[in-house]
Amino acid sequence: MSRFFSEKYKALTPYTPGEQPQDMQYVKLNTNESPFPPCEAAVAAAAEAAKKLQLYPDPDCRALTAKLAEIYGVSPAQVIVNNGSDETLNFAFMAYCDANHPAVFPDITYGFYPVFAALNGVPYEEIPLKADFTIDLPRFRGVGKTIFIANPNAPTGIALTPEEIESLLKTNPDNVVVIDEAYVDFGAQSAVGLVNKYDNLLVVQTFSKSRSMAGARIGFGIGSPALIADLNTVKYSTNPYNINRMTAAAGLACLENEEITRRNCRTVAENRAFTVAALRELGFACTDSKANFIFAKSDKIGGRALYQELKKRGVLIRHFDKERIADYIRITVGSREQMDIFLARVREILEEQV
Amino acid sequence: MSRFFSEKYKALTPYTPGEQPQDMQYVKLNTNESPFPPCEAAVAAAAEAAKKLQLYPDPDCRALTAKLAEIYGVSPAQVIVNNGSDETLNFAFMAYCDANHPAVFPDITYGFYPVFAALNGVPYEEIPLKADFTIDLPRFRGVGKTIFIANPNAPTGIALTPEEIESLLKTNPDNVVVIDEAYVDFGAQSAVGLVNKYDNLLVVQTFSKSRSMAGARIGFGIGSPALIADLNTVKYSTNPYNINRMTAAAGLACLENEEITRRNCRTVAENRAFTVAALRELGFACTDSKANFIFAKSDKIGGRALYQELKKRGVLIRHFDKERIADYIRITVGSREQMDIFLARVREILEEQV
Repeated sequence: MSRFFSEKYKALTPYTPGEQPQDMQYVKLNTNESPFPPCEAAVAAAAEAAKKLQLYPDPDCRALTAKLAEIYGVSPAQVIVNNGSDETLNFAFMAYCDANHPAVFPDITYGFYPVFAALNGVPYEEIPLKADFTIDLPRFRGVGKTIFIANPNAPTGIALTPEEIESLLKTNPDNVVVIDEAYVDFGAQSAVGLVNKYDNLLVVQTFSKSRSMAGARIGFGIGSPALIADLNTVKYSTNPYNINRMTAAAGLACLENEEITRRNCRTVAENRAFTVAALRELGFACTDSKANFIFAKSDKIGGRALYQELKKRGVLIRHFDKERIADYIRITVGSREQMDIFLARVREILEEQV
Repeated sequence: MSRFFSEKYKALTPYTPGEQPQDMQYVKLNTNESPFPPCEAAVAAAAEAAKKLQLYPDPDCRALTAKLAEIYGVSPAQVIVNNGSDETLNFAFMAYCDANHPAVFPDITYGFYPVFAALNGVPYEEIPLKADFTIDLPRFRGVGKTIFIANPNAPTGIALTPEEIESLLKTNPDNVVVIDEAYVDFGAQSAVGLVNKYDNLLVVQTFSKSRSMAGARIGFGIGSPALIADLNTVKYSTNPYNINRMTAAAGLACLENEEITRRNCRTVAENRAFTVAALRELGFACTDSKANFIFAKSDKIGGRALYQELKKRGVLIRHFDKERIADYIRITVGSREQMDIFLARVREILEEQV
């Protein structure tokens, strides 16, 4: 830290992303990436767009926005595209929270929410998940704060229904409810169908998981035209050209091939069911994950030890040093081959525990 | 604006980027893009990187950072890469300005500085350029605020020397001095050589102009390791994966071909000299621009009228509705062919004025 750093950030603890080893020698099941490459049309579109890099991109991302609007059944004025959903979430913290408008989210959820709150000087409340790791909905009803809920939640994978989300929207009519649907495509139900009924709903999604484009950085928000106008005011006051030409082109091509995305999501759901069944046979407790990851606890070895043993054996998963979930590991659902390797290594480790 | 938008932003006026017509039918001399395509190696590297978009990029941008450090003669810990220099500048406003640490910049300069200040709730002072449009250096010496200076300045193109910048660093030892060198490669001298001597210097550069990569979005900052650590704290609290895989790969390939960048910059400088000479013959007053744009005032037609007449004729340039510079136009220096078309249209327009 320099002697010039603003007082307001001196206590700031940044988010810690999952390890991103650049040598690629691990079976990488730690950051919820897709095991499938981007579709060929997206790769080709990016390559073509690279030829015109001397020109600025369209700051309004009109083509991508229009296609998203078509797919999700809303108008283009109800969509904003940003540089990953993290940027969209930060814009929402900026736009809808301040010293007088605190944020609220579960105690166990995406670890970036408290960082965004701290960055923006926003007071926040963490409502504990219930003992079974489900969200304590009654405590969020009428809470009177800006709500951030990951659905499915991370790292539990447990999903709310649209009806449950609607109960939050109805009982918090004067507060924005942000539903972070990064993982929704793997088996949960989206709240997008509610945006025309509730002006306080902002749905955030990403191309990083189901669309195999974590390396391209596209997140998007869907809400009322007024909410999207707010977020555009923030975007045009921070970084108008936030989406580069290659990403915009790849994203559009990806959306023109939604059947590939849907097929990949089905495969992930199958591999998830297979792996959960195998883990349960090995004595693991697993949550009912609707996401592209599994949240599991062994009855024989602690979470940190299992993470370390797997890493030694070339398999990267994620472990969180947080009290309530320290016994758990989070495993990204990869290809069937990756899951077979993961399970084989887990069996080796468990045998050594005896 | 929604009824939920935070009070702190209700008066925010976002930055207005130059027009980005998506139909490409104009001779586009309005946003200081390069007339040259990105180098072939950059295009190829981006296309290759697109094949692995399912994986997150390296949040530390290690390869790109190391190559920039090598080129600029600093250590990798003195470099941060961001999603365009706008993002780097905003991070600097966040890190080094607050209610107790105002910003200061010239009254005529990059129009985003007051927007960043307003976004971050930072009070700011605008010090008027002198009558000849040069920066009033004595007023910046010992000013005791966080200084933002574009060098060369925009939209005047007039440059300071490293000695002049050093006088600001010396007389403001307790304040960060941000030198925004977006246009430095076209004929001005960089302040990068001073970063090891002054811990209060942050130099910001971009790939958007001299490196033909406005469409890829890469900006970078160079300063002391402590300043870069501050900016990384901000980056990892807002958007750690801010550079996508394709951009990182294209940027690295571009840096491995610096001779192409240098040759393109020489050509732009030649075309600038040619165009300035022609404009002066036509009765224009032109500043001594060291940038890839020309700032010029006709003795026959106002700035807005000339902008409009040129647009009708298929040539886009930029005009600013700001009192002191309303008579001027800013023309990006393009290819010789583009400058010939621009000059031919100007001659037509001037003839009609008689």
